[in-house]
Amino acid sequence: MKVLVIGAAGMIGRKLTARIAADEAIGGTPVSDLVLADVVAPSATEGPIPADTIAADLSRPGVAESLIAGRPNLIFHLAAIVSGEAEADFDKGYTINLDGTRFLLEAIRRAHIEDGYVPRLVFTSSIAVFGAPFPEEIGDEFHLTPLTSYGTQKAVGELLLADYSRRGFLDGVGIRLPTIAIRPDKPNKAASGFFSGIIREPLMGEEAVLPVADTVRHWFASPRAAVGFLLHAAAMETSSLGARRSLTMPGVAATVAEEIEALRRAAGDKAVALIRREPDETIARIVAGWPQTFKAERATALGFTADRDFDEIVATHIADELGD
Amino acid sequence: MKVLVIGAAGMIGRKLTARIAADEAIGGTPVSDLVLADVVAPSATEGPIPADTIAADLSRPGVAESLIAGRPNLIFHLAAIVSGEAEADFDKGYTINLDGTRFLLEAIRRAHIEDGYVPRLVFTSSIAVFGAPFPEEIGDEFHLTPLTSYGTQKAVGELLLADYSRRGFLDGVGIRLPTIAIRPDKPNKAASGFFSGIIREPLMGEEAVLPVADTVRHWFASPRAAVGFLLHAAAMETSSLGARRSLTMPGVAATVAEEIEALRRAAGDKAVALIRREPDETIARIVAGWPQTFKAERATALGFTADRDFDEIVATHIADELGD
Repeated sequence: MKVLVIGAAGMIGRKLTARIAADEAIGGTPVSDLVLADVVAPSATEGPIPADTIAADLSRPGVAESLIAGRPNLIFHLAAIVSGEAEADFDKGYTINLDGTRFLLEAIRRAHIEDGYVPRLVFTSSIAVFGAPFPEEIGDEFHLTPLTSYGTQKAVGELLLADYSRRGFLDGVGIRLPTIAIRPDKPNKAASGFFSGIIREPLMGEEAVLPVADTVRHWFASPRAAVGFLLHAAAMETSSLGARRSLTMPGVAATVAEEIEALRRAAGDKAVALIRREPDETIARIVAGWPQTFKAERATALGFTADRDFDEIVATHIADELGD
Repeated sequence: MKVLVIGAAGMIGRKLTARIAADEAIGGTPVSDLVLADVVAPSATEGPIPADTIAADLSRPGVAESLIAGRPNLIFHLAAIVSGEAEADFDKGYTINLDGTRFLLEAIRRAHIEDGYVPRLVFTSSIAVFGAPFPEEIGDEFHLTPLTSYGTQKAVGELLLADYSRRGFLDGVGIRLPTIAIRPDKPNKAASGFFSGIIREPLMGEEAVLPVADTVRHWFASPRAAVGFLLHAAAMETSSLGARRSLTMPGVAATVAEEIEALRRAAGDKAVALIRREPDETIARIVAGWPQTFKAERATALGFTADRDFDEIVATHIADELGD
């Protein structure tokens, strides 16, 4: 099986490709060939699978065609401008998150017309497709009313993925990722960065800023769980999806207070004391529009599995990022 | 107030512009100026309002800019390739229904950046944004899972309308029209044509084909009610919409059998006898994916009003199209 990863240089992309390179297979099917693309050339993977790394901007016409020239059987489309940046730069967000996705879908459709090509396409969407007001728990049939341009672009991507799948041009699965915690790297421009920061920095003996109230509840998955979702979406049977190709991933619902208690159990009061409360009205207002808890019954029934609780999310971070 | 109608040559566009020309005002505000655009030049309206008629293809770059050059305060965007044609011609549907809408939104955004322009934009969406399986009654928070490319393009339009409104580039209202009955003209390429045909043709003494079972239930509005929705969307206060800019319009839920009984009450058994049952599996399968009944509570609370029942829909057709 030939695999293409678009957005391979990002945090999830790197973890995904490292896992594929280590496993040498996805869902029991050996991977013969790996193409890793991003706007900056991704690092090569270690291991026996031959891997090409390509610097390519999907939002430029013709690039999608060249990326699928080798007719990968499986494509992960992870490339995106994050929410904060897509909000700050309207044109850039639409160009990359919407046009880029559409160029990819169109390149696949033209290849389908040419030679019957029908790849599995795993598209990373986000819970940012949802916007307040919400019911207490958000079910699988709740409408998408994004409150950011990023969420809008992801919701449009979901609609296109479903239509192109229904038409038989590709076999798409969209996965709505929870907020990823703990992010191992320094905060990107996402307003959600503090959810990771208040765990990551104290574990390193550094101060972290908490801009919102302890009562804020949100929906999380570890990077390891996110990679698990992607691989499951790549290998799953899709006939039961019908025309509804995008799924809210299961996650862990936790308040900031619960995050802090998980940190205390893992690293003690000294670590917790490094969290400095510094209310930020802008961030608080953005976060107030975010979903808190989902049912995610469909994805769970289809075999996607979340972290058990926030303690496991912290333990995963310590095991994967901090050695011991 | 300057008004631009894009898609003015279509059935609803013609009725809308005739009504505006007759009323000389919308929601109490006098109309000073009417620009009517479509791919073929619309007919001029009668009455004292100066009207320009323009043949313009919105899907061609630059056309949207020229249409809004006079900075209309109110824009009706009715232009679309219908469902059957958008399904048959993938490229044409996406080009007109998606790219065309996006060109319009982008032209408005650039004008906004240039001179602070913020028009009211009334966008006609459709209940085709919904796809089976459904609950018995579809509420205002049910997700959009279109089963046609047309429905997909309309759902994308709704998302973009909401984002551009949230950003303050325009003041958008999307209205999800029920299936329009009775259409006065010969069937277009829509698979829903028979819902009108089985009333329209018998009223003219002509035979009509019924391709589905009598038990099929669907959601209807008369052309007159649809024009009422458009005018209400043009004049309503939008602050209460928040970020959720598209509304399912109220309608009449009726089965084919109820349609036929309304025809019998209006025109007798002789008219009903002109309906010839000729089951068509393709149409039956398409129709099975369509919604049957909505709650439409939000639109009703916001002052949109539907026809009372199918008898009124038949009576409206007779009054508006057949003289006496």
